[in-house]
Amino acid sequence: MINQKILEVQLGKRSYPIIIGSSLIQDGFNLEKWITGKDCLIVTNEVIAPLYLDSLLSSIKNKGVHSIVLPDGESNKNQKVWAKILDKLVEMRASRDTTIIALGGGVIGDISGFAAASYMRGISYIQIPTTLLSQVDSSVGGKTGINHPNGKNLIGAFHQPKLVLIDTATLCTLPEREFISGLAEVIKYGAIADEKFFSWLENNVTNLLQREPTALVQAILTSCKTKAEIVGEDELEMGKRALLNFGHTFGHAIENVKGYGEIFHGEAIAIGMLLAADISAIHTDEKARLERLIRNIGLPHTANSIEIDSLLDAMLLDKKVQDKKLRFILLRSLGDAVINNNINNEDIRNVLNKRLN
Amino acid sequence: MINQKILEVQLGKRSYPIIIGSSLIQDGFNLEKWITGKDCLIVTNEVIAPLYLDSLLSSIKNKGVHSIVLPDGESNKNQKVWAKILDKLVEMRASRDTTIIALGGGVIGDISGFAAASYMRGISYIQIPTTLLSQVDSSVGGKTGINHPNGKNLIGAFHQPKLVLIDTATLCTLPEREFISGLAEVIKYGAIADEKFFSWLENNVTNLLQREPTALVQAILTSCKTKAEIVGEDELEMGKRALLNFGHTFGHAIENVKGYGEIFHGEAIAIGMLLAADISAIHTDEKARLERLIRNIGLPHTANSIEIDSLLDAMLLDKKVQDKKLRFILLRSLGDAVINNNINNEDIRNVLNKRLN
Repeated sequence: MINQKILEVQLGKRSYPIIIGSSLIQDGFNLEKWITGKDCLIVTNEVIAPLYLDSLLSSIKNKGVHSIVLPDGESNKNQKVWAKILDKLVEMRASRDTTIIALGGGVIGDISGFAAASYMRGISYIQIPTTLLSQVDSSVGGKTGINHPNGKNLIGAFHQPKLVLIDTATLCTLPEREFISGLAEVIKYGAIADEKFFSWLENNVTNLLQREPTALVQAILTSCKTKAEIVGEDELEMGKRALLNFGHTFGHAIENVKGYGEIFHGEAIAIGMLLAADISAIHTDEKARLERLIRNIGLPHTANSIEIDSLLDAMLLDKKVQDKKLRFILLRSLGDAVINNNINNEDIRNVLNKRLN
Repeated sequence: MINQKILEVQLGKRSYPIIIGSSLIQDGFNLEKWITGKDCLIVTNEVIAPLYLDSLLSSIKNKGVHSIVLPDGESNKNQKVWAKILDKLVEMRASRDTTIIALGGGVIGDISGFAAASYMRGISYIQIPTTLLSQVDSSVGGKTGINHPNGKNLIGAFHQPKLVLIDTATLCTLPEREFISGLAEVIKYGAIADEKFFSWLENNVTNLLQREPTALVQAILTSCKTKAEIVGEDELEMGKRALLNFGHTFGHAIENVKGYGEIFHGEAIAIGMLLAADISAIHTDEKARLERLIRNIGLPHTANSIEIDSLLDAMLLDKKVQDKKLRFILLRSLGDAVINNNINNEDIRNVLNKRLN
C-alpha cells in the first residue's frame, strides 16, 4: 500500500480531512469510526456497486448499513433520482444522525451530497469518489446539487462532507475516456495557480496516461491541495473560489448545448479553458503550452457542430452570471488567473467563431 | 400607522431585522432598498395575490419584478410546487443576486425559502408573512422546507432571510379558524419561556380574539423576541432551539395521521402541548391554566378518531428522533421548558390513550 496522505480542508467547525491512498477500500480502511450515528446509507450506482460495494459493506460491522444503487450517468443527476434517495432515507427511518456515504463519481457525490444537505435540513455525508474527476474536483469543497433541464447544477446547496476518502486504486477500472476527461481538471489547477505543477504535468504525461500509481497520487494530492486552499479561503464562492471555474463558463454551456453525456465534463472544460485562454491577454507561447498539454493528454481542443447562438444563450444561464453580465476566469500567465466581468459579447462571439467553426 | 417595531435576529454575518407594524404593505414600505440585485421574484398564492400583490408590485419601481401565484394549502408544500418556483427562476433567468419575496403564510414562506436555499446553491429572500402562524413562527429563524408524503418538513434547509416584514393589517383578512390556530404558537412562547407573557395572554384573550391592533403587535413582538433570542443562540438546532418544538413531536404526528389540512397546524400543536404537559412533572394548577387558556382561545384540547399506533409510528419519523429515541420538550413549570429523551413508550401510550380516547 502506498502511504496515506492526509490533507485538511480548513473551514473552522466544518473542517474535514481528505485521505488519499491506494487500495484503501479493498484493504478495509476503518470507515466505521467516521460514522458517528447508528446507521448509514451507501449511495452508489450500477457500475460501481459490483466493483466496491461488497468491500465497503464488509468493512462496516457495528452500524446499521443500507444501500441504494442508482442508474449511472449525468442524465440521472436530476430531481427524480434525488427524490429516490430521500424516499430511501424515509423508508429506512433515517434520523438526523444517519450518515450518507457517496460511493461513485461526481454524479453520485453531488446528488448524494444534496440529499444529505436537504434531508431533515442536513445530515452528515462522506465522499468516496471513484473517478479522477470527482477525486480532484467535485468531492472536495461541499458543492452539492442536481441539474435542471435548462442548466447544470442549478439546484443545490453548499454542504461540507465529514471526510473525503480517495482510493487511487479505483482509477484502474475507469474507462480511458473518463480518466482522460478527469485530467482536464488536473491541468486546470496548474493553469490557474501553480506553474511548477503545470511543468510537472508536461513532464509526466506518459506516466499519468499509464496510470502510474506514484504519479497519480502526486497529481491528485497537488490538485486537492490547491482546491482545499482556495475553498478554505472562500467557502461560499464570494470571491477567490471563482478561480476554480476557469474554463467552466464556456465548458458548462458546451455541455448543455451538446447534451449531458454526449460530451464529457472534462472534455468540455478542456475546450472551455482554451476559449478562456483565447480571450486572455496571455503570452502566445504559454497559450501554446496549454493547448499542447491538452492535446498530448488526449483532450479535445475544439468541438464541431455547435451553434454559437445557443451557446451564448446557455452561458447567460450560468450561475456565474451577475446582473446578466458574463463572468470569466482569465489567465495573466500560466499559474496566475483573474476574474473578469468586462468582456464584451462581440469578443466572446469572436473567439467562439474562431475556435469552434 | 402604529409605530414600527424593529427586532434584530443576531446571527453574525447572517443577522437580519424583523420589522413589525400595521399597514406596512398598503402604505408603501420601502421594500426596494432590500432588493440588492437587479430583480426579484414574488412568490405568493391565489388567496393572498388578490389582496396584496398589486400593492407590493407598485412599491417596487426600479427593479425587475416577476411573480408566481401558487395554489393555496399545506398539501401544496411539496416537491412538485417547489420545482415550479425553480422553473420560474430559470425561465426569468434569475442570477445569484436575484431576491425571492415570499408573500403569504407558512407554506409560501417555507417553500419559497427552500427554493431560495437551493437555487444556485442559495440566493437571498425576504419574508412577508401574512398569517399569524407564520408571523410568530415560521418566517423567523431560517427553517425552510417541504413535506414528504411520509412526514412534514422532512426535506429542507437552514437558510436565513435578509428581512422579515410583518404587517399586522394582513391579519384582518385572515379566516377565524386560521387566526386562532396561529395563537397556539403564541401561547407556546409563554409556556416555554415567559410566564409573565403567559399571564398577559390570559388577561388579553378578548382583545386578541377581537384582533385589537395594539394587542396584536404586543403578542407578535413578544413572540418574535423569544424566537429571535433562541435562534440567535442556536441557529442549527443543536440544543436550545429544540425548546421551540414544545408540542410539536405530538403535534406533527397528529397532523400527519389526520392528514395535512384536515387539522390546522396550531390546532395539532395545541393538543400536542397538552399531551407534553400531561407527561411533564408540572403542577396540576399550571397544567389547568394551560388547558384553560387553550380552550378560552378556542383551540382544541383533544382529537378523536385517531389510531394510537399510527400516531406512535408517525412520531418515530419526526426529525427530532435521535437513535430511534423520541425527544420531548417538557415543562418544569409555566415559562420553563426542558428537553427530555427519556420518556418510555408506555408512558407515551398512556397519555395518548387518556387524552385522545
